[in-house]
Amino acid sequence: MRRFLDQNFLLLTKTAEKLYHEAAAQEPIFDYHCHLIPQEIAENRRFSDLTSIWLGSGAGGGAVGDHYKWRQMRANGVHEQFITGNADPYEKFLAWADTVPRLIGNPLYHWTHLELQRYFDIHEPLTPQSAPAIWKAANERLAADPSLSVHGIFKKFNVFAVGTTDDPADSLKWHTKAMETRVLPSFRPDRILNIEKPDFAEYIATLGTAAGKTIHHFDDLLDVIRDRIAFFHTMGCRISDHGLDGMPFTSALCDPGLWEKEVKDIFAQALNGKKPGAKENESWKTFLLYFLGQEYAERGWVMQLHLAAIRNTNSAALASLGPDTGYDAVHDYPVTEKLARFMDLLHSQGKLPKTILYSLNRKDLYPLATLMGCFQGESSPAKQAIPGKIQLGSAWWFMDHIDGMETQLRLLANTGLLSRFVGMLTDSRSFLSYPRHEYFRRILCNILGTWAENGEIPNDFDLLGGMVRDISFRNAQGYFL
Amino acid sequence: MRRFLDQNFLLLTKTAEKLYHEAAAQEPIFDYHCHLIPQEIAENRRFSDLTSIWLGSGAGGGAVGDHYKWRQMRANGVHEQFITGNADPYEKFLAWADTVPRLIGNPLYHWTHLELQRYFDIHEPLTPQSAPAIWKAANERLAADPSLSVHGIFKKFNVFAVGTTDDPADSLKWHTKAMETRVLPSFRPDRILNIEKPDFAEYIATLGTAAGKTIHHFDDLLDVIRDRIAFFHTMGCRISDHGLDGMPFTSALCDPGLWEKEVKDIFAQALNGKKPGAKENESWKTFLLYFLGQEYAERGWVMQLHLAAIRNTNSAALASLGPDTGYDAVHDYPVTEKLARFMDLLHSQGKLPKTILYSLNRKDLYPLATLMGCFQGESSPAKQAIPGKIQLGSAWWFMDHIDGMETQLRLLANTGLLSRFVGMLTDSRSFLSYPRHEYFRRILCNILGTWAENGEIPNDFDLLGGMVRDISFRNAQGYFL
Amino acid sequence: MRRFLDQNFLLLTKTAEKLYHEAAAQEPIFDYHCHLIPQEIAENRRFSDLTSIWLGSGAGGGAVGDHYKWRQMRANGVHEQFITGNADPYEKFLAWADTVPRLIGNPLYHWTHLELQRYFDIHEPLTPQSAPAIWKAANERLAADPSLSVHGIFKKFNVFAVGTTDDPADSLKWHTKAMETRVLPSFRPDRILNIEKPDFAEYIATLGTAAGKTIHHFDDLLDVIRDRIAFFHTMGCRISDHGLDGMPFTSALCDPGLWEKEVKDIFAQALNGKKPGAKENESWKTFLLYFLGQEYAERGWVMQLHLAAIRNTNSAALASLGPDTGYDAVHDYPVTEKLARFMDLLHSQGKLPKTILYSLNRKDLYPLATLMGCFQGESSPAKQAIPGKIQLGSAWWFMDHIDGMETQLRLLANTGLLSRFVGMLTDSRSFLSYPRHEYFRRILCNILGTWAENGEIPNDFDLLGGMVRDISFRNAQGYFL
Repeated sequence: MRRFLDQNFLLLTKTAEKLYHEAAAQEPIFDYHCHLIPQEIAENRRFSDLTSIWLGSGAGGGAVGDHYKWRQMRANGVHEQFITGNADPYEKFLAWADTVPRLIGNPLYHWTHLELQRYFDIHEPLTPQSAPAIWKAANERLAADPSLSVHGIFKKFNVFAVGTTDDPADSLKWHTKAMETRVLPSFRPDRILNIEKPDFAEYIATLGTAAGKTIHHFDDLLDVIRDRIAFFHTMGCRISDHGLDGMPFTSALCDPGLWEKEVKDIFAQALNGKKPGAKENESWKTFLLYFLGQEYAERGWVMQLHLAAIRNTNSAALASLGPDTGYDAVHDYPVTEKLARFMDLLHSQGKLPKTILYSLNRKDLYPLATLMGCFQGESSPAKQAIPGKIQLGSAWWFMDHIDGMETQLRLLANTGLLSRFVGMLTDSRSFLSYPRHEYFRRILCNILGTWAENGEIPNDFDLLGGMVRDISFRNAQGYFL
Repeated sequence: MRRFLDQNFLLLTKTAEKLYHEAAAQEPIFDYHCHLIPQEIAENRRFSDLTSIWLGSGAGGGAVGDHYKWRQMRANGVHEQFITGNADPYEKFLAWADTVPRLIGNPLYHWTHLELQRYFDIHEPLTPQSAPAIWKAANERLAADPSLSVHGIFKKFNVFAVGTTDDPADSLKWHTKAMETRVLPSFRPDRILNIEKPDFAEYIATLGTAAGKTIHHFDDLLDVIRDRIAFFHTMGCRISDHGLDGMPFTSALCDPGLWEKEVKDIFAQALNGKKPGAKENESWKTFLLYFLGQEYAERGWVMQLHLAAIRNTNSAALASLGPDTGYDAVHDYPVTEKLARFMDLLHSQGKLPKTILYSLNRKDLYPLATLMGCFQGESSPAKQAIPGKIQLGSAWWFMDHIDGMETQLRLLANTGLLSRFVGMLTDSRSFLSYPRHEYFRRILCNILGTWAENGEIPNDFDLLGGMVRDISFRNAQGYFL
Repeated sequence: MRRFLDQNFLLLTKTAEKLYHEAAAQEPIFDYHCHLIPQEIAENRRFSDLTSIWLGSGAGGGAVGDHYKWRQMRANGVHEQFITGNADPYEKFLAWADTVPRLIGNPLYHWTHLELQRYFDIHEPLTPQSAPAIWKAANERLAADPSLSVHGIFKKFNVFAVGTTDDPADSLKWHTKAMETRVLPSFRPDRILNIEKPDFAEYIATLGTAAGKTIHHFDDLLDVIRDRIAFFHTMGCRISDHGLDGMPFTSALCDPGLWEKEVKDIFAQALNGKKPGAKENESWKTFLLYFLGQEYAERGWVMQLHLAAIRNTNSAALASLGPDTGYDAVHDYPVTEKLARFMDLLHSQGKLPKTILYSLNRKDLYPLATLMGCFQGESSPAKQAIPGKIQLGSAWWFMDHIDGMETQLRLLANTGLLSRFVGMLTDSRSFLSYPRHEYFRRILCNILGTWAENGEIPNDFDLLGGMVRDISFRNAQGYFL
């Protein structure tokens, strides 16, 4: 019988304990994909209370905060007033405390208590009974302890680098501050691809302005994109990111002459406010992604493709709260064929960048992991081969729990090279999420420890400890920098 | 080394044993979805022999019985004569006994022996060798023991309520008998939705007759449906059920004027014997489901959607034996997008009822569980929020085994609130199926016990025991009544 | 703490150890589906070095060898020169040795060391450090030890039979040699189905020549196919095999008159060099498969359907290295409906042969396993029922690892009769693959041992040992011969 969440949490064998404490725990964190707000980093924000750092708030015109928690509060019957509404921060905290004991089996149960332990040295489970004392103790600490500022947190958790998520039109002005932790921008051009959105033309104008140009024609757009990529590159960006509802691919792409004409027309019409049809939409996205992939490859960037989310399913909530407030789900369209053809097109030109394939849908992991194996190695004989060039993305969002991470790790191991994996990212909006790296590392060490103690792999600490260090940090360092 | 199927069956830790024996075992059974025959309940049927209660029979013009067992007998090479044919009951029993040792790994192996233990106090494995003695002993008990009548069984297993499955045209005359166990009708209007079936017009006439009306036009149909819902409501019905081949959704639904005209035409043509095309079929089903969902919401009913079965795949068997004789399988179409849009449409009108989403296909569980999280909570600010309003249905039919139940329970826990789960149902045609609730509870307790002993959750009996009681019975009681 | 890969590898309970050592280990191997080269068998080939037997080579105009290993070398950043290129065999071996420690968690890690132990009596892990000594020792043994010839290997591993994979035009001249191990041809008519390929007309001419006929019309083709099936039958063939990109089915098949006309036209046009459209392609494949299924049924053959591979995804690699060089992946189209209708069509005519359904995509296993249950038993009352007539194919290719095999075995057990399973095949191009049968049997025994020791099944050695023997060998012997 083990104690709840003690130092050997999730480490079910002696070998797992040793791997975690002697190899994983010391490694820095390279959180290469997150949604932290650069201004809050630059200004070294401090937090007034546990609600503001943990749950976020709908105050001030827009719901910003931890929609993972909000969803579970809704499932528990909490009224929206205590979630994104204008209830008092303490009332919101109590509504969360009321939900926590209901979360047995959910990763939020673990994260909540890991965060209380690691940030606040509070070791008691959060319940309606313990809530008042925890509120008081945590808030006192937030006020008094400099290690609970943003920079203090980075230092405490040995955060080597964070990768923020930035629009191509962003000035990146908050990325300029010199800090021990590297704050690296990521290039996320979803709004360029989303030609079907009503604000597309407006956005294109904004993008032009950011580059000091006016975008009249399609060629202007490509020039501006190249400019912004160059600018992002000078700011340290080496990673792009795409959130794709479905994987776009149109076979028209095989005839470049015909193709470019079509895309120019689609763009011209969209600038004139005409919403494209489904076919034009897919053509547009395919071409842009193809163009961007080549640019990424030229600069040695990493391309991240995030697949299989269905977003904003609840139109009433979208209208009242906006996007990213807890109304997205896992999609289930087929992905293999279009993705295969897209990767092949880039690869056949020697222009397939380092790529990370993420899917939110567990059913996609086998296809992605095996497809990935078809595009490893050098893309042309002249180029140097990059070990682990194509990656299966870490278990993410709705898959970010023990079962999901074990699935992703085992499946990657079964079909490829786990030892080349670039590892965990938080994908988080919260400065309290760094224990998720610990969580991931414990799960990794537990899998390896079990295999070793069962005689499935050699119990060789140099071999396994090195592998743990690689996956915890060193692979990411080599891959992204 | 544990003994086969002893009192700690499936309980691999001390904590699991304690949770099962001290929290789960005492709770009543709320079997909210089954296919028991109301007349047999009302008449307190007794059974002449093990074959009639266990395997059913094809005698008397129609194969009625346990098609789970029939499928495995066929897979074992048993001739149809000994399955649904006119062989002697004892010969059929022997054919089953011959199959049982081949079932190692199948839930029928567990259910068979749980049923022999719990109903007949027989603790020996069923084999061709033990079959004659078991036949004799069980049949003597069936003849002599009043606890093996229907009402005796309900009492023995502490069955608080059963939810039968009833056609809207049903008189519910067998539901009127006063009994300790509540026998609640469920409203299953599949035949109203199945406009493509050759007997649709005939069925609509029958439905009208049941309501004392003649259905000439579409508006008559809606009136009759409302009447039948009202009647079912007075008879205690609080649950509806839909078996859907695919999730229907047509975006035409967004234009009500156009829509109603179209649906009226489709109905008029179907009454004239014209089989609708695929598009009309989907339009019809979408509208009806939309109409019914609103009616359910108004009455506070639960809507059950059963997805991803492909039925009657074997046309020769359908012709000779009829439906529900063991020729259905798991379908694999995509479900997310249409289901999301359907739920959104109801939700956006404040008319999404309590809903249980079932899929027979394991690949759908992630999409359903996450989609469910988008529609939790109050449907309009004026309404009270219902904890666990949208439910992920219990592992069901081909998923109803240890691996399937563990998958459903863990996946629900990982993505939502396991503690709000309304738990197990038998979905069974047999009075011998109540040990499946025990089976489910043991699996649940084993998961929680393992988590607790590994230190993943607090080993707090009040917390975990309460959760076990809730999932075993109390959540269902609160949700359905 | 167990030692790496000792005699109780993968056997985590005493019961599992006993089942493996006393029941599984003695059974012969019936490797009913592989890609060994008949000429190499007939000529009792010997191998010059570890690279030639283990990795294969691109020398001599065409990459032939173990593309499972090649993929992982590419993922590890090894340059193609050391994989399929013209590097020295020793350099290639060193590149492989460099990759092996990176394979922790991949079945190749197990297979590599099982093969070193079982064939070469080498018990040290392969690493860059141990590579030179292993190269020397293994090559000496290859030169000196007659048990490392093809026939020696068959004898050493107690190989009762191997099923090669042969084109209908093949002369089968290498199958005539009398040997202790039966070398059975399999009929794989993919090139007859692949009417969309540019060499189709040329192939049809070759096929005609093989039968001593000229194929002018569709009816000629059917005659030639019947001839070749008859010839294969006389050569001991009892198994057919189909590799299908997608499951074809066209509902036109329901009108035979219309149908035959259409197919004749498609064939005539293809002989004239016209590439068929997608619809014609599917019609062609459906009809041919339907025709072939009936022929197989008449002769009592087994029909294998391999679904859900996407092949040759990397067009540059296809151009430079050809097919089967490591550029295939798992596909994700839906399969249930078309497969159900195809099986029903054959079954409704009493002509559904014994069938094995394989899918490379784990998501398909539930649909396939349950669909299979709809077509078990006799296909017409006059025929004898075959136990386990329809089979769920063994975990295969990208699923051929512990997790994949456990998934397939448990899923089959949960939904059908594991005890009737015909068991493992290597699907391999290598004479070093026989330990994969050992691997499979250990996994099987471990599952049964765990169930028995947990009290989920009786710990009855006669029952479980018999089941293990059946699945290891005896079921295949009964099913295929």
